[in-house]
Amino acid sequence: MTSSTPASAFHLDREEIFAAHEGGKLSITSTRPLADMHDLSLAYTPGVAVVCEAIAADQAVARTHTGRGRTVAIISDGTAVLGLGNIGPEAALPVMEGKAQLFSSFAGLNAIPIVLDVHGVDELVDTIAAMAPSFGAINLEDISAPRCFEVERRLIERLDIPVMHDDQHGTAVVILAALRNSLRLLDRQIGETRIVVSGAGAAGVAAVEMLRGAGARDIVVLDSRGVIHAGREDLNPVKQALATTTNPRGVTGGVVEALTGADVYIGVSGGHVTEKALQLMADRPILFSLANPSPEIDPELAGRYGAIVATGRSDLPNQINNVLAFPGIFHGALAAQARSITPAMRLAASQAIADIAAGNLDVGHVVPSPLDPRVAPAVSAAVQAAAEAEGA
Amino acid sequence: MTSSTPASAFHLDREEIFAAHEGGKLSITSTRPLADMHDLSLAYTPGVAVVCEAIAADQAVARTHTGRGRTVAIISDGTAVLGLGNIGPEAALPVMEGKAQLFSSFAGLNAIPIVLDVHGVDELVDTIAAMAPSFGAINLEDISAPRCFEVERRLIERLDIPVMHDDQHGTAVVILAALRNSLRLLDRQIGETRIVVSGAGAAGVAAVEMLRGAGARDIVVLDSRGVIHAGREDLNPVKQALATTTNPRGVTGGVVEALTGADVYIGVSGGHVTEKALQLMADRPILFSLANPSPEIDPELAGRYGAIVATGRSDLPNQINNVLAFPGIFHGALAAQARSITPAMRLAASQAIADIAAGNLDVGHVVPSPLDPRVAPAVSAAVQAAAEAEGA
Repeated sequence: MTSSTPASAFHLDREEIFAAHEGGKLSITSTRPLADMHDLSLAYTPGVAVVCEAIAADQAVARTHTGRGRTVAIISDGTAVLGLGNIGPEAALPVMEGKAQLFSSFAGLNAIPIVLDVHGVDELVDTIAAMAPSFGAINLEDISAPRCFEVERRLIERLDIPVMHDDQHGTAVVILAALRNSLRLLDRQIGETRIVVSGAGAAGVAAVEMLRGAGARDIVVLDSRGVIHAGREDLNPVKQALATTTNPRGVTGGVVEALTGADVYIGVSGGHVTEKALQLMADRPILFSLANPSPEIDPELAGRYGAIVATGRSDLPNQINNVLAFPGIFHGALAAQARSITPAMRLAASQAIADIAAGNLDVGHVVPSPLDPRVAPAVSAAVQAAAEAEGA
Repeated sequence: MTSSTPASAFHLDREEIFAAHEGGKLSITSTRPLADMHDLSLAYTPGVAVVCEAIAADQAVARTHTGRGRTVAIISDGTAVLGLGNIGPEAALPVMEGKAQLFSSFAGLNAIPIVLDVHGVDELVDTIAAMAPSFGAINLEDISAPRCFEVERRLIERLDIPVMHDDQHGTAVVILAALRNSLRLLDRQIGETRIVVSGAGAAGVAAVEMLRGAGARDIVVLDSRGVIHAGREDLNPVKQALATTTNPRGVTGGVVEALTGADVYIGVSGGHVTEKALQLMADRPILFSLANPSPEIDPELAGRYGAIVATGRSDLPNQINNVLAFPGIFHGALAAQARSITPAMRLAASQAIADIAAGNLDVGHVVPSPLDPRVAPAVSAAVQAAAEAEGA
């Protein structure tokens, strides 16, 4: 989930990749023909003035009579793109376009790729807030941690439209869905499960929050320097918070100490887990190693030790991919005219994803396929219902 | 050109107008199907990483392998929308969407409506510059004068992509095309023509600049307080500049003094010209009264006095409409990979528009119809050639 892959890993042809991107991947067209002066007079001057005046009198009209009610901006500053890191706004554009294709294909939403050449938290917040009247919702994307947390928090406070950083919450929603179904298959309870999350960036922090919301009580988080615990003095504020909300047994050390006796491994950071460390885990562990293209746990090893194995890869079973979440989450939030995307809405999304896979659950199918057309409508309906239930 | 109209003026049905805007007027879709995991792997992860890396190594790849090479942002702060004035960003959105439809329908370009909730010159420039890597060119729209001049100037200086404020230059390009053909029909020379421009806002200032570039030597400009001349002490810097570059005969007073002996009237400000003032003009004047829905000169009166009459209205002959200019100008600038849109490129656009009408020139056809499909390709080719000739 957090790193990219050279095409070769998936046997993709370089020429075929470039052909799929040539001229861009999006087409913006008129929903109605402009065939004669009458059409032009309705859509543009003079007719358009009537709609402008109606919106000036009542902004709710913008939701129904502009694209705003079904338009999501996908906004990045290009600082944490796939596993490529800080490659800049222009180089991030193909990812945002790809995501816009997915919004269109899976949820019928208009999505607009916006890449920004500013990177400070204040500048990002001000710039994004300035353009917010153009959109119905904002999907923040590929903004590096820890800035992503404050950028999202401040935009949520400031704007009256839904804002979600997908690298955080989209990933977390799908991880929780996969974990719930895995625990169901193995007849285990989340409250009695020891969980290790490797990675304290965008996805790791949000996954911990969601797992706790779903009842997890024993989570140990690793960053690049080892287990996060209250005794460490090298923690940024986000990790300091993690040190107080996780690690109830006061584990210290590294991946070996964290994994000893653990039931679940969730890798969202790259890194590498040895066979020796796997041997220290509890019997028949659940192993989600989501780094791309090289999962933190070698797939062959994971298959040998794990009761259930998931990765971020499309060529292996149980692909944990945000595309299961974001089209439906935004569609549902827009349908509910929600002002924000709340934890309850994300939990509902996660449950909806899990429920679809639950129909024919087995160790190779704890989440639906990313292309399953049932997913986005089910997620949207669940998110809309949750939003309306809490008046979000 | 500078004011809007109630629908009733054009016998448009209010219900029909709202139906034409329901759900927005744009559709954003994938250019290629995402039917299976292979498609997904090419367009999104993992394949997309290959294109991202190529752009990080060479930004020119963004022009060919993202939508950037054919995407125009239409950006407004909603301060000078049609004739409705400062109605705010949300209420401006239908106009920007309408314009995006025209970019798509006439030039096959992707256009993205962006409305901004900031209004200071610094904030506008910073916000627009921050998002510039998302687009191939920027069409500024409906930003009130005099801020629009400085916003455009600073963005042109700062960015390496074309930026054009269409209310200024689009209008001016079409006015000049119409005037050239009118003078041709009447066998007059622009350098020997007395021209009155009523309006010193975006369109008026740019029209004066273009007319001067085309050889006009005797231009008198009116603002709401009368003739602009060097003796006035109530002029902003833009109008101070006009006072030095226009009005060579030192005219003072109001519309009556300005029109006395004038050959051409160009109204871009609303206002009203009486029959008595028309009687003071030179014989068989050229009358362009572009205010919508009520031209500055009553159409019946204009027909009686004018040798050639043009308006902004689609229900009268000789409609002077920016749509003749902007799709082709931006298409040509993008095709040439121009870094800016220069006066020479705008002159070329104007000439191309005039040339198309010249094929069957008469007093009722000094400009092509806004729906003439020959216009945008001809304008694009002329602009591209001009850009390449001067290395813009």
